[in-house]
Amino acid sequence: MNALNSIRSLTPVGPRINSQRLWEHICAMADIGATAKGGVNRQALTTEDTRGRMLLLQWASCRGYQASIDPIGNLFIRRPGKSPDLSPVLTGSHLDSQPTGGKFDGVYGVLAGLEVLETLDDHGIETERPLELIVWMNEEGSRFPPPTMGSAVAAGALPLADALAIKDVDGIDVQDALKIQLAELPVLETRALDMSGFAYIEAHIEQGPVLESQACDVGVVTGIQGLHAYEIQLLGAEAHAGTTPLRHRKDALVAATTLIARIRAAMDDPEDILRFTVGRLEVYPGSPNTVPGRVTFNIDLRHPDPDFLLRADEKILQLCAGEVEGCPVSAKVLLRSTPVTFDDRVVATVRNAAGGRAMKFLDIVSGATHDAKYTAEHIPTGMIFVPCEKGISHNEAENAREVDVAAGAQVLCDAMLAIMSAQL
Amino acid sequence: MNALNSIRSLTPVGPRINSQRLWEHICAMADIGATAKGGVNRQALTTEDTRGRMLLLQWASCRGYQASIDPIGNLFIRRPGKSPDLSPVLTGSHLDSQPTGGKFDGVYGVLAGLEVLETLDDHGIETERPLELIVWMNEEGSRFPPPTMGSAVAAGALPLADALAIKDVDGIDVQDALKIQLAELPVLETRALDMSGFAYIEAHIEQGPVLESQACDVGVVTGIQGLHAYEIQLLGAEAHAGTTPLRHRKDALVAATTLIARIRAAMDDPEDILRFTVGRLEVYPGSPNTVPGRVTFNIDLRHPDPDFLLRADEKILQLCAGEVEGCPVSAKVLLRSTPVTFDDRVVATVRNAAGGRAMKFLDIVSGATHDAKYTAEHIPTGMIFVPCEKGISHNEAENAREVDVAAGAQVLCDAMLAIMSAQL
Repeated sequence: MNALNSIRSLTPVGPRINSQRLWEHICAMADIGATAKGGVNRQALTTEDTRGRMLLLQWASCRGYQASIDPIGNLFIRRPGKSPDLSPVLTGSHLDSQPTGGKFDGVYGVLAGLEVLETLDDHGIETERPLELIVWMNEEGSRFPPPTMGSAVAAGALPLADALAIKDVDGIDVQDALKIQLAELPVLETRALDMSGFAYIEAHIEQGPVLESQACDVGVVTGIQGLHAYEIQLLGAEAHAGTTPLRHRKDALVAATTLIARIRAAMDDPEDILRFTVGRLEVYPGSPNTVPGRVTFNIDLRHPDPDFLLRADEKILQLCAGEVEGCPVSAKVLLRSTPVTFDDRVVATVRNAAGGRAMKFLDIVSGATHDAKYTAEHIPTGMIFVPCEKGISHNEAENAREVDVAAGAQVLCDAMLAIMSAQL
Repeated sequence: MNALNSIRSLTPVGPRINSQRLWEHICAMADIGATAKGGVNRQALTTEDTRGRMLLLQWASCRGYQASIDPIGNLFIRRPGKSPDLSPVLTGSHLDSQPTGGKFDGVYGVLAGLEVLETLDDHGIETERPLELIVWMNEEGSRFPPPTMGSAVAAGALPLADALAIKDVDGIDVQDALKIQLAELPVLETRALDMSGFAYIEAHIEQGPVLESQACDVGVVTGIQGLHAYEIQLLGAEAHAGTTPLRHRKDALVAATTLIARIRAAMDDPEDILRFTVGRLEVYPGSPNTVPGRVTFNIDLRHPDPDFLLRADEKILQLCAGEVEGCPVSAKVLLRSTPVTFDDRVVATVRNAAGGRAMKFLDIVSGATHDAKYTAEHIPTGMIFVPCEKGISHNEAENAREVDVAAGAQVLCDAMLAIMSAQL
């Protein structure tokens, strides 16, 4: 009997999660950093992020769970098992948000994980293995690029020192921002960087329209498309807007618009599978009557096919070599994350858990990246998606239904219990 | 005998200004908001701007000059005349700077004016008319667009309430920023908005290369080219960069780069006299992995020919109507300032003052706008330019020579004394 079969046969109909408590937790967390338009602004290592973590730690503390933190600020909440030496079954996601983010992105996975732990307590269930809920630091990367910073550092894909030195637009680096957060949080046990565990299952909203349009309860995520991230800088020369002839200018913004148009043209993909985004562009000094002396912008590039991504990568770096309209260009690769395929056995466990509850589910590849991308390099990993309204995410209008949120948490609970007894 | 002739015949060789003191004042002011690259960042109504005004008020207070402030924050320093009821002879400029500004732009005119007042004291000269030195509020318009805000309000060209409601990028409005400054300054006599006086002469660095390249001591400014300022906004829809197909996006930054390219193409001017600049562009929410939902940018447009400007204006507003790549566009005209011709008699007075000192001078039209643009609508106005290194301005590398700075202040002193006895 192989491991997969053992999982199938062991899939239990486990304890029912408390969907009302889960929804209340989501609403309470949404109050922290709430925006006027109904979303949240709780970017990594801000006061709001710290308040979000404090609220979670309070809930964990009521249950007596043990909390610890690693050097990059990943937070771990542990429910002990009967055999403390066995490696834990992990779940998790992130509490940080986009500047105009929604109430569910990341938060949902963290609170679904907490719900699993609390459900086991409610039903007096002791597990053989410990369970751990992880709050990854800075998944969004909006204040401090790149995204999935905490899990990348834990996986050894991004050196700790490099991550700590990354600065936000105000010049504050991760190290200092993290110190400020640690001073405000209750004293936590510290632990070394580590990416190990028996299995990792992350719940998340889909952030796309597929599950809703196909009226599915949950998505069984089979992998994540590849993601490259770049920072491009153009250097011009500041000059007076009223006196400097256009022919004599080195206008970094004019050069940037030309360069972006060239790259967009080169990224042409008739199938519309490639995702090419310039989401951040900073003009320096940013005065209406001064010719821009410097422009910095970021490119976010994604595709499920690693070869397609590498060809696009080559074109971008070619176009960003030398000068554009008299302005020298430099390109920094922030991230080259190849497409990921999740562990067959974990994916099957999630599929069986959904099937065990007679839910309608669908296999799906994630368009967005997640911390599960980095856990998958070291730990058998899977994900569960729940539908979100019209597929809208990274937007204050992001929304999900209570019933879907509950379904995903139930599948997470069942799958975490099922995987525990598997031989991975 | 007409007024012009009376000026010529009365041009005196007056008292010598103290060039060393003037240079020391410039250096002391350059310390306030000094940047690492040798420039200054002393934007309107910031702490640095307040400190600059305090230093000037200290110098004025040592001489016993009377200081007052109007409702938009223009600052007046008065040296009394023998006939206090006669309208004053005015000079002035601004202390606020660009975010990456130089040590001379604006500052020079204020401190040259102070030097005139102090020179008269040094020589025990009582004038018939009072002299007033004006520090205009927010000439640069970099924190709070548009430029020349203080003089525009005093001239009635911009309603006071509208100006007070203008916000910076952090959402702080002029009214609140002004309150903060007033709370930090010594208590000042308040005065009503007013744009009157016998004559106004402003000294300034050229901010262009003409005087230096022709080895002139000073420039006799005959007028200012026209300036239009616009704020353009494009509305897209925020979306997840990893999941949203390009065809379904409303990307405000993609639309903005297309629109800017279209406007630039329409502004084509083979003679290279038109100055078209996009110096400020803000992307919202500005996160690398979120499709931009809003872009706001400013256009600064200048030409000496009013008809040319109006044709360009029409093209811009046409291109900014409707939608661009699915994103609705709105255009706000911040400023439509027509070209200005200065008062013949004041211009002649400046010319004669330069000639009286055997200086090499040149008639010149200003490419940059100045507060003198608005004084000219109500008060006989002229300007004096001094050369600046390579014509570089709105740049931390901005520089001028001590000898040129002194020459301009000497011409200002002579011209202010000469104009006093003229019949304007």
